[in-house]
This record gives sequence, structure tokens and C-alpha cells, in this order.
Amino acid sequence: MTLGDKVAPPGGTLGILGGGQLGRMLAIAAARLGLKAHIYAPPGDNPAFEVAASHTTASYTDADALSAFAQTCDVVTLEFENLPLTALEICSGHAPVRPGARALAVTQDRVEEKRFLREAGVDTVDFWAISELLALPEALSDLGGRGILKTRRFGYDGKGQARINDPSEIDAAWSDLNGAPAILEAFAPFTRELSVIVARGLGGEIVCFDPAENRHDQGILRVSRVPGDISQAGAAQAVAIARRIVEALDYIGVMGVEFFELEGGALLVNELAPRVHNSGHWTIEACVVDQFEQHVRAVCGWPLGEPARHSAAEMSNLLGDEVNAWRDLASDPRAAVHLYGKAEARPGRKMGHVTRLLRG
Amino acid sequence: MTLGDKVAPPGGTLGILGGGQLGRMLAIAAARLGLKAHIYAPPGDNPAFEVAASHTTASYTDADALSAFAQTCDVVTLEFENLPLTALEICSGHAPVRPGARALAVTQDRVEEKRFLREAGVDTVDFWAISELLALPEALSDLGGRGILKTRRFGYDGKGQARINDPSEIDAAWSDLNGAPAILEAFAPFTRELSVIVARGLGGEIVCFDPAENRHDQGILRVSRVPGDISQAGAAQAVAIARRIVEALDYIGVMGVEFFELEGGALLVNELAPRVHNSGHWTIEACVVDQFEQHVRAVCGWPLGEPARHSAAEMSNLLGDEVNAWRDLASDPRAAVHLYGKAEARPGRKMGHVTRLLRG
Repeated sequence: MTLGDKVAPPGGTLGILGGGQLGRMLAIAAARLGLKAHIYAPPGDNPAFEVAASHTTASYTDADALSAFAQTCDVVTLEFENLPLTALEICSGHAPVRPGARALAVTQDRVEEKRFLREAGVDTVDFWAISELLALPEALSDLGGRGILKTRRFGYDGKGQARINDPSEIDAAWSDLNGAPAILEAFAPFTRELSVIVARGLGGEIVCFDPAENRHDQGILRVSRVPGDISQAGAAQAVAIARRIVEALDYIGVMGVEFFELEGGALLVNELAPRVHNSGHWTIEACVVDQFEQHVRAVCGWPLGEPARHSAAEMSNLLGDEVNAWRDLASDPRAAVHLYGKAEARPGRKMGHVTRLLRG
Repeated sequence: MTLGDKVAPPGGTLGILGGGQLGRMLAIAAARLGLKAHIYAPPGDNPAFEVAASHTTASYTDADALSAFAQTCDVVTLEFENLPLTALEICSGHAPVRPGARALAVTQDRVEEKRFLREAGVDTVDFWAISELLALPEALSDLGGRGILKTRRFGYDGKGQARINDPSEIDAAWSDLNGAPAILEAFAPFTRELSVIVARGLGGEIVCFDPAENRHDQGILRVSRVPGDISQAGAAQAVAIARRIVEALDYIGVMGVEFFELEGGALLVNELAPRVHNSGHWTIEACVVDQFEQHVRAVCGWPLGEPARHSAAEMSNLLGDEVNAWRDLASDPRAAVHLYGKAEARPGRKMGHVTRLLRG
């Protein structure tokens, strides 16, 4: 058996790079399957440590610590994508890393991601790679005079983005990005935002949870609803695209695929997340195997779970001091309350979420 | 605020006496609510340690370790009832212990438990307290010539029990118990075994999950089904009895109440478990708030969750080497697989369980 085929059986150890709420929920899912979680994260507020059999506190550039960590693991995975690829390379000398470096390389860079999608035959908004201020006027003009300027790398939750509605706003938008390599994306005149949580197993099998309809505010997800206001044809199309993406990447694990739905129903892929995804938290209550367990099953070489849902559901994020309403939320008879154990409720910070099961 | 009113808010610490699978599932439920779990258990195989923010390995008679443990906790609870009452007394000098010493004192002793139940107006089988061999013939004759001889204390999963079908079996049954104080219980001619998982909150509010129908084998639970073959009247009666019991004990937390259903539908209470209970594991998949979270909510002074179920369910225990079939079990599209992370699959040992959601 090569590293590529390696399975983590019950009693085995799943290494997780990253110590936030996604790592926390992955560690809990691993425990349910009798696996031990070993969390690796830099110093800071790492709520995943509290539910893990072991943890390592070290930088993602500490080669010795990464090696020592990976040597304790049957399989290594990750809870967020903004990791140095060298960290994955070091780990992969000792244990399979799933998803692998290629999926991260593609999804860490908005330009590479869109180029990959188009090569795979998947539609996206039009875009220009922007490496200097001088290139912006022509790009903006080509995209119809409006666009969103984003850093190519390390953006999340709406950070590192600036709208440009008029050429006069170019300078301010560019200086907001502090000279980082950028992408100018055309505005998508979308009527709706959707996402699909797709899983691909070690043997290449693929299953998708039902698409969710998402509402964002200032770049941060507020609410996901399933089934939402999504047509059957739209759902089938979104699922088909998600399958094509994970196949093209030879991907192992769960991926979140975000879509814009345009007037008339056409779908553009907005963004890929090579990990469990905020818009899939509803699966914890509405499915027998949720996205976290599905990811653990996929990367550990277990059979994938059935993704059918038994209920409709609505998930709302608790941002910043919204978490202070925990007692009222816990009093809502329909609400499943999830709190992440983070120490400080900074504005906009994801502190927890609430899922309500609905009829349908 | 006195200790009696104390609430454990998000970020607080719930101490759990006991490190087995029930402590493990309690710790996971606490984490979901943003609470830290501190597990206290003697040396040995303690799978709950793997999902807890902290743990203490020490004997239940180590007063210094118990004090140090309880000082780190906002609230202390327990995952099994066979603890020295002195351990609870020591902890209760530093943090509220829920459920408290009275519930344990009553449920640790089969004779005290039955006396309490009868005083509360709850029916049980007829019984005799037996402290010496000489008392057995008269007791057996009084109970109709047959009975089950059990140790008064420290029995679980059918251990410490011997059937007596004829006076000639008295000597062997008595010697099986090694002179421990005993109870002789009449055979209950039951048609069915039921259980109710009841929760009582800090403010006295009570909620019950739907009764489960249980099947045991050699004293060990094999299968729980909800709704099972239970009449509406039977379910209502079981729930009413469970409510009466937790009220009479001024109980805080989740309790498992086991019943015998007789021909004609009358219910006898067989046994009380002052903790989360194996026959309530189905609530993890079939309810928005499961028995583990319900217990955490109750003992931490949170509002209780809604106990309604969205699906019918069947839970089967995985005993001993049945756990080796994990890959086949994980391939069943209806099955939620739970493995407890125990090191050694001894015969009859509870290694995990599987819940299947059913229509209805």
C-alpha cells in the first residue's frame, strides 16, 4: 500500500492543519468515528484544541514541528486554505495530505482558480489579472466600466476587496490593496447566491449535499437555506458543475463551491473552498452524515455517507456580540445552537451559528 | 447567587466525573455549546479524554485531586452512578454537583431505589432485601418460588445477578454474589421493556423524549426503537411516571427510567440511571437537541431543548468485536456510526453504536 491509498481506521489519528471552528467541528466528527484528532495551529485562539486528543502549537513555516506532527498522523487534512504549500509538502513526506497541494495552489489564487475553472469548462465572471495600477483603466473599460478589485491571495469574508463603480475610484481601490497582486472581476448581475458542498472519496466516488441558497452581508455569510428558492434544474446544474470541478482536480475531501445565479438561471462559479464550508453547517442537523463527518470519511478512506436530508433547514451565523443572546437562542425550541468557544467577540467575527429545521 | 443557582455560561467549564463513552458524548455536547469539558477519571482506558479541554487522572477517593478538579469547574456532573458519595461531597464544596448526592444515594442501591419509588407512588416488582443466605428461602417462597438475586450495589449490564428458578438453586446464586448485600426481586412477567429519558432543569422545568422500546440480551441493551410498539396511553403513562420521579428527587439533569410493561399495559419501574442513558442515543440523530446536550443544558442552568423528534429511529449497540465491521456499517446509507475510541474490544464491551433513521 502506498501513501496514496492509506486509510485511517478507527483508533487512527487524523491531523488537521488549523485550529478554528471548522477544525473544531472536524475534530468532533472524527471523534464520533473513533478517530483521534491532532490539531496543528500557530499560537492564538485555537478553539479546536479543546476537542482534540492532541495538539501542536507552532508556525506553518516550522519544518521540524510539521514533520513531528505528520509523523503522528495516519492522514493529514486542513481546515483552511491559506497555508504555505511548503507546509503540505513537508507533511506529505510522512502521511497523505488530503486534499493535496494542487487543490490548494489552485484555490489560493483567484486568477489561477478562474483559469482552472474555465479550462474545466466551467463559467465564471470575466476577469483581468492586475499586477500594476497602470493596467486598471483598460481592464475596467473592458469589463463595462465597473468591477470588483480583489487581492489574488489571502482574501476571506470580504477582506481585501474594493468595488469600483467609476474610473475615478481606481486610485483609491488600488491603494486599499497595498500593491498586492490583484484581480479585477466583472460585476455579476446575480439574482441569487448558491453553494454546493461536494465530497469525493479515495476511490473517486462523488456525492453532493443539496444546494443551499445563501445571503451575504459585507462579504460575510449571514444565512443559508435549504432547499431555498432554487429550481430543480438549477440544483441539478450546480451539482453537475461541482462534480466536474472535483473530478478535474482529482480532489479528495469536501469542497464548498459558491455560485452566482443570473437572471434566466445560468450559473457562474464565484469561488471554491477546498475544505468544509460555512454554507454546509445546516447538514449537522438535517442529514445523518454531516459535511464534517463526510470530509473525515473522504480523507480517511472510509465509504462516503448518504447526503440526503430529512428536513429543510436554515442556518444563521452569529457574528460578534450577537453571541451574547445565547440564552434567548437556546430558548428557541426549533434552534440548534452552536458556539465555537472563541475568547473574544470582535465585530464580524464568526462566534457561532444557529440552525433551525423547517418543514419540507 | 448561591452555588445552587450557579449557571455555566459559554466559555465556562463543565466537570464530568467518569471517562467512558457517556462522558465522551457529554464532552462533545458541551463543546457544541461553547463550554469546556474537564474530565476526571481513574487511570485506565478513558476515551472521553480525547475530546475534552482538560482531564485529571486520579482515583475517586483522592480528596486533593477532587478538590483541585472541582475548583476549575463552574458545574460538576457525572457519567456514571457508581461513585463514592464522598467524591460528590468534596466537589460540592467548590462547585454545584448536578445531579446531587441524594439522587446517587438512592440509585446506587437497588433496595433504596425501590423503597423510594414506592414512597413516590410508583409501582415496582415485589422484592426482599437479603443480607444473609438464611433469609432467602422465605423470600423466594413469598415471591412465588422464583426470582432474581442481585447485588444491591455496583451492578450494571447484567453483572452481579443470578436467576433462581427453584429453591435448589439458592446456594449457587448466593455464592455467585460473594456475600454482598443483595435484593431478591420477583420475576416481572413483562411483554416489553421501555425507557424514558427525562430531563429536569435548574428551574424545575421537565421535558421527556419519546419512550423507546428496548431489547436486552444477557442483561445488555442490544436495540432501542422509537416509537417502537408502544401505545399512546402507555407512552403517556411512562412519561407521567418519569416526571413524578425527577420531581420527588428534586433532580437536575437527564435521567434514564427503565420500565417493564406487563400484559394489559401496566408499567413497573425496573431501574433508574441518574445520567444519560444508552437507550437515549437515538436522540443524537432524531432530535434537534439530543440527550447529551439536554443534560449539559440542565446541569449548566441553560433552557432545556425541545425533545420532539423529527424521525423514527432504531439504535443498535456494537458489542465486542462487532465493531470490526465498521467499514460495512459505514457503507449502510441509513446508518449513523458512532465508535467510542476504546482500545480493546472485549466480549460484551460497548464499543460503539449505530442509529438508523426510519420513516414515521
